Amino acid sequence: LEFMNSSALDAAATENIVKLGPEKGVIHLATAAVLNAVWDLWARAEGKYHAMYLSIQDPKQIVSCIDFRYITDVLTEEEALDILVKAQEGKKQREDQMLKEGYPAYTTSCAWLGYSDQQLKQLCSDALKSGWTRFKVKVGADLEDDIRRCRLIRKMIGPSSTLMIDANQRWDVAEAISWVSRLAEVKPLWIEEPTSPDDILGHAAISKALAPLGIGVATGEQCHNRVMFKQFLQASALQFVQIDSCRLGSVNENLAVLLMAYKFQVPVCPHAGGVGLCELVQHLILFDYICVSADLRNRMCEYVDHLHEHFTSPVVIQDAHYMPPKDPGYSCEMLEESGLYFKHFTFVQYKHWRGKNILKLSHKRTGLKMSKEKVFQKAWGTEINFLQSSFSVTVNRIFFFLLIKVPSFSESFDFFLILFGLSFIM
Amino acid sequence: LEFMNSSALDAAATENIVKLGPEKGVIHLATAAVLNAVWDLWARAEGKYHAMYLSIQDPKQIVSCIDFRYITDVLTEEEALDILVKAQEGKKQREDQMLKEGYPAYTTSCAWLGYSDQQLKQLCSDALKSGWTRFKVKVGADLEDDIRRCRLIRKMIGPSSTLMIDANQRWDVAEAISWVSRLAEVKPLWIEEPTSPDDILGHAAISKALAPLGIGVATGEQCHNRVMFKQFLQASALQFVQIDSCRLGSVNENLAVLLMAYKFQVPVCPHAGGVGLCELVQHLILFDYICVSADLRNRMCEYVDHLHEHFTSPVVIQDAHYMPPKDPGYSCEMLEESGLYFKHFTFVQYKHWRGKNILKLSHKRTGLKMSKEKVFQKAWGTEINFLQSSFSVTVNRIFFFLLIKVPSFSESFDFFLILFGLSFIM
Repeated sequence: LEFMNSSALDAAATENIVKLGPEKGVIHLATAAVLNAVWDLWARAEGKYHAMYLSIQDPKQIVSCIDFRYITDVLTEEEALDILVKAQEGKKQREDQMLKEGYPAYTTSCAWLGYSDQQLKQLCSDALKSGWTRFKVKVGADLEDDIRRCRLIRKMIGPSSTLMIDANQRWDVAEAISWVSRLAEVKPLWIEEPTSPDDILGHAAISKALAPLGIGVATGEQCHNRVMFKQFLQASALQFVQIDSCRLGSVNENLAVLLMAYKFQVPVCPHAGGVGLCELVQHLILFDYICVSADLRNRMCEYVDHLHEHFTSPVVIQDAHYMPPKDPGYSCEMLEESGLYFKHFTFVQYKHWRGKNILKLSHKRTGLKMSKEKVFQKAWGTEINFLQSSFSVTVNRIFFFLLIKVPSFSESFDFFLILFGLSFIM
Repeated sequence: LEFMNSSALDAAATENIVKLGPEKGVIHLATAAVLNAVWDLWARAEGKYHAMYLSIQDPKQIVSCIDFRYITDVLTEEEALDILVKAQEGKKQREDQMLKEGYPAYTTSCAWLGYSDQQLKQLCSDALKSGWTRFKVKVGADLEDDIRRCRLIRKMIGPSSTLMIDANQRWDVAEAISWVSRLAEVKPLWIEEPTSPDDILGHAAISKALAPLGIGVATGEQCHNRVMFKQFLQASALQFVQIDSCRLGSVNENLAVLLMAYKFQVPVCPHAGGVGLCELVQHLILFDYICVSADLRNRMCEYVDHLHEHFTSPVVIQDAHYMPPKDPGYSCEMLEESGLYFKHFTFVQYKHWRGKNILKLSHKRTGLKMSKEKVFQKAWGTEINFLQSSFSVTVNRIFFFLLIKVPSFSESFDFFLILFGLSFIM
């Protein structure tokens, strides 16, 4: 775990790379991909072979994984330890409860923009039959259309079900307030991403304006680091924290955000709208309930129903709840036969890769004996979340050229991060 | 100019690329590089052949270059136009004044961390002889050392000269306040980058705490977009706006920030500590004085004395003032013989580049007839600012491989952005 907290982040923080962020953009996404892969291996290692969320147990060890730099004005190491130690009480019961009931989920799959009313009705009706009670509707393209669609969904799901709306950064501040006010009649629990993901004060203004209407503000899927989340919490700019397993700097940075959200008593409702994101983030939200918040009020995890079939351990949804993963690891391994991503990039090709530093380093730090193919495969599995399948061929070709033709590239650990940064750009 | 405001930014904003930022990190830096190159060409085009800062003249045209999305709660298009129209008065006099006196500069070259006291004294003494009256000192490594060095410099330059201190993001909020308070005795005008560049509320807390000591907060060299600057201004989190010609999305986004800073009456003191940054940013600050602020109080532009010899039109400093550039363009062209950057990457090599879309697009939008070598050379000149010379060989090799070996890469305008993103990562 020490490895996860230090070396890779330190490597990314070297003079030449830090300026490309810092702690944001391609470089940060790449760091997350690599570290998520290491978390996967960690959970499987040393004969434990358990699901990743169970591998973060000891409060001291957890705290050692967190980078407190720039957040000590809101959360110190001592406070974090205190929260985690207190939450040890009842941990076993909550773990058993999760295994039995699962973690509450909501669905985003019923009401994307562009669906016909007939489609909306059909999908909603199917979802209700499957036990769903929480629904998210995409809005922001056309106000009259939004009103019609939201009324339709509210009518279908009834007054006791939960409805959320999501604008995907569509508006400026004033427009967000007036638009969402018009939708208050359908009683949305939250408006998600009303404006720029960087606009903390804008979100605070929107939150303040919508509070009398009983509508909260949710954001976070493109919130790039713990410093930003810190301020969203300080400014009362959100009422629902939507962490993302791949946008923040892996599990490590998510731990910091979960603890800050707990301190401010703001519920965490993770973002999972992307290939493999459901698989990853379920671990974080289970950890949050079992080891941090001990609270399910106003909490739920997003679920989107696509492309799970490419993963060796796809999420299991029962009665609109995430059932805790039982396979070892971080659920980020993809099927080898998912040629959609892999067909142009075989193990044969990157066997020529001559960089051994990442392996040496991780052997030294973790004592794990893993092949470079294994490390690579894991990391690849997690970073795939941000790739579009249509770009995969291009990515594979770049990997091929860099790995085979340019041996000097593979001389440092930075190289590893660069490779992933590169693949994101494609 | 319409081209600069729309097509390239739109291209960067496609679904696949936008998520890698949005508007931050490698992708945003790459966008800036390409657009800065286009501004260079624009100034030279259509028989005008004048310095870039003179090419932005007409208020309506300037406003058409600004993306007001997410900033209308602070600055609308109408307000911007109003500011620019009012500033037309006295423009000619200010232009003449600049040509005669130049724009005030400060030097960062005297007091980097790690210099011996003997070196500090020597450099300070030389600078004083050359007419410098404003000096920046790097701090943050060791408090007692900082006190000694700052006292030494203050003693050298006397009470009437200006001293600024720069911590390069060294501290958390509380530490920044206590550390800088200890340095108040040397009367620094500002503390620069006291904490994380993302921490608006942290900077606001530091500003509030240091105001009674007469010390302002300066930041911006790693402030990634107009939405962040908007909030820094809204929160009174800075007293000096340090725009960067390559960090923000080129001239276009800098125009938005200059106008917002004017509205809040916060002086702009650009960052220029990087290869070629002095050359570029002098145009922006001249524009600011002539066409926006009409004010020199508390205003000055950074100057760092290195690597200017690689540019075809290096900055001209006279008596600690930037003398307005007279050569046409944006001063970002590098000498062909600066083999430090170019030796492994010749025109012969990228003549094989098959992508013509960027050229078609720019021909269509601007009516300029320019060869791809020309576009490429300009863009290369501006993005070099973020490159370290030690990495150039690697970068060149990547360019070589991608351009020569992977023709399918060059099929879209995105390709152009990708190339630059790629070079930043290296």
